[in-house]
Amino acid sequence: MSDDKYEKGKMIAYSCLGKSGEERIAQLTKIAPAHGRAIFEYCYGTVWAQPHLDLKHKLFILIAVCASQGEYGAVERQVRGALNQGATQEEIIEAITTCAPYIGYPRTNGSLRVAQDVFDKWEERDDWKAI
Amino acid sequence: MSDDKYEKGKMIAYSCLGKSGEERIAQLTKIAPAHGRAIFEYCYGTVWAQPHLDLKHKLFILIAVCASQGEYGAVERQVRGALNQGATQEEIIEAITTCAPYIGYPRTNGSLRVAQDVFDKWEERDDWKAI
Amino acid sequence: MSDDKYEKGKMIAYSCLGKSGEERIAQLTKIAPAHGRAIFEYCYGTVWAQPHLDLKHKLFILIAVCASQGEYGAVERQVRGALNQGATQEEIIEAITTCAPYIGYPRTNGSLRVAQDVFDKWEERDDWKAI
Amino acid sequence: MSDDKYEKGKMIAYSCLGKSGEERIAQLTKIAPAHGRAIFEYCYGTVWAQPHLDLKHKLFILIAVCASQGEYGAVERQVRGALNQGATQEEIIEAITTCAPYIGYPRTNGSLRVAQDVFDKWEERDDWKAI
Amino acid sequence: MSDDKYEKGKMIAYSCLGKSGEERIAQLTKIAPAHGRAIFEYCYGTVWAQPHLDLKHKLFILIAVCASQGEYGAVERQVRGALNQGATQEEIIEAITTCAPYIGYPRTNGSLRVAQDVFDKWEERDDWKAI
Amino acid sequence: MSDDKYEKGKMIAYSCLGKSGEERIAQLTKIAPAHGRAIFEYCYGTVWAQPHLDLKHKLFILIAVCASQGEYGAVERQVRGALNQGATQEEIIEAITTCAPYIGYPRTNGSLRVAQDVFDKWEERDDWKAI
Repeated sequence: MSDDKYEKGKMIAYSCLGKSGEERIAQLTKIAPAHGRAIFEYCYGTVWAQPHLDLKHKLFILIAVCASQGEYGAVERQVRGALNQGATQEEIIEAITTCAPYIGYPRTNGSLRVAQDVFDKWEERDDWKAI
Repeated sequence: MSDDKYEKGKMIAYSCLGKSGEERIAQLTKIAPAHGRAIFEYCYGTVWAQPHLDLKHKLFILIAVCASQGEYGAVERQVRGALNQGATQEEIIEAITTCAPYIGYPRTNGSLRVAQDVFDKWEERDDWKAI
Repeated sequence: MSDDKYEKGKMIAYSCLGKSGEERIAQLTKIAPAHGRAIFEYCYGTVWAQPHLDLKHKLFILIAVCASQGEYGAVERQVRGALNQGATQEEIIEAITTCAPYIGYPRTNGSLRVAQDVFDKWEERDDWKAI
Repeated sequence: MSDDKYEKGKMIAYSCLGKSGEERIAQLTKIAPAHGRAIFEYCYGTVWAQPHLDLKHKLFILIAVCASQGEYGAVERQVRGALNQGATQEEIIEAITTCAPYIGYPRTNGSLRVAQDVFDKWEERDDWKAI
Repeated sequence: MSDDKYEKGKMIAYSCLGKSGEERIAQLTKIAPAHGRAIFEYCYGTVWAQPHLDLKHKLFILIAVCASQGEYGAVERQVRGALNQGATQEEIIEAITTCAPYIGYPRTNGSLRVAQDVFDKWEERDDWKAI
Repeated sequence: MSDDKYEKGKMIAYSCLGKSGEERIAQLTKIAPAHGRAIFEYCYGTVWAQPHLDLKHKLFILIAVCASQGEYGAVERQVRGALNQGATQEEIIEAITTCAPYIGYPRTNGSLRVAQDVFDKWEERDDWKAI
């Protein structure tokens, strides 16, 4: 069963993060093999695979969570995932601005700039597209 | 226009937080009048009133954000809002568990317990229902 | 010199926290003696003793910092310190609401309620008054 | 393999948290079954089961991490785990005070008080002892 | 009234952030128009415009809050605002070091370096001066 | 006694951070002299000098704490300190991955990459070696 989750996790991860995500997780797996396996088997294959919210709405949640932590690199990856799952730019911007009265303006503004940067580069970055 | 936003904000706030929210914001307004006005005019009347994500999905985002901060009282209020906006218990639990690999288990577990506590008391708490 | 700082720190601490603070730091010193000594010698006797900002304005800074961390017990103590250093209730409330767009509403609101609670009990709590 | 991890995770968890932990995780599992399973299989059975640091030193790390988040309920549980793994009170107090210049005094002090409270109740709480 | 706040907010913002702030908020407004408007109308025109603490002391509070979040870009902007409102370098450094026992050394040290960097470049950056 | 702590703190700091740390603390001391002195006298000479946990295990704790804050520059310095105190790469990686279910994946992953980067450069950086 665990191998099923691992394979399912890979499919979900790559459908959100593309070639760029594949390379990034491979690097992490080289640094910390057990953690690298958990990224697929536990995080994507178990948690993200849950059935009640679709991936697009899960990604809005995670954009917000990473914004609230000021983890801008993670915000960037979740924004790319949301685009791959069919979110519009307007929805992504609203997911971020909805957080403004809760996480404060510095992290809201920083996350908005990261999102816009992803939008601006989206066309030219084939390694970001779902695989 | 500003008064329009204030009135619209009141409607949105009460549709999520009920009588209990009305009393709570009234207390805050007595402590800090300008801030109390901003809760309706800015937070609910401007930010929550944005058109691209419906209130239920905004509430999933805010459940997650408040969980990530360990602000359990705020998690509780957002969970009540989500129920008032038609969310199922399964969706709310999944909004929280989706955060587990991002915010960590202490805050995930604390938020799950808060959500369950709201579910358990929901029937008997008329002051939590949308007005 | 270190003993000078320790004694100076005691004076500053008690001028902000009163009898209640004396007891609280005594408890911490019993749990962790070296840390208890550092509270007086380092925190109050070195850091708080710096000359460029007066204690009242340092306390506004620390009310805000503890509010930003959601450490409400610490917010309460800093609010008491500010009152002992001559701050008005209006200044304290404004120090907190100034943070709203930076730390978010849950922690702003929680801190406002703590401050009001201190104001409400101030008259009857002799153990909070400067010594 | 996954069931092996689940069983191993249970043994590790109960050796740190005792009967009290068993009941707590059972409650969480009722609220969120997939998450409850992950607590044993992923958190304890995979992460805690790693071979290079012993459980006592892992628990010092986690006391510090939970202290840095201001998650005092989690600090309490990790302190209990450390006692069950043979840590002395002096080591636990030093694990917390080591964090003081990094996480700040409010969370250091709050965590010290939680630790002392566990020490004070340890003898009488059979449900905290390793099983 | 709302337009009054918007105009007042612009004046306050530019008196702290200069030409550089004008350009930055214009970029944010292009990304998220309603949020950009709120920066002037709500944040500067309502919150910063409150009467009980002057802008210089509000800026010390916000330097501390942004330092406590590890949001160094925001620390930089608040330091520039403080200089424009007449704060001395000694006061700014003391506002930051006052936080050391509360926010920890990593964020204190990072903020001190940011402040020094602003001081070093201040003369040559006309776009940072109040307008 | 205070000068003893200052000298002892210097020895501990340099045994962890090498020439690079010496230069860094000298810069901070120039910016904020009293804080620079406290880094040696209080942080290293008092807190780190405590007797119950050895420096290697204190450094695992501090790697975890700085990881939990997302303060990657500080994580890097603590990783260097751990190597200087005889930790293996496997132990350091496990100290970080132990935190994953508590601090979340973004900060775990960011810290793993920082650690690997230190490992990769270790041989060529004489200024990082203990003095």
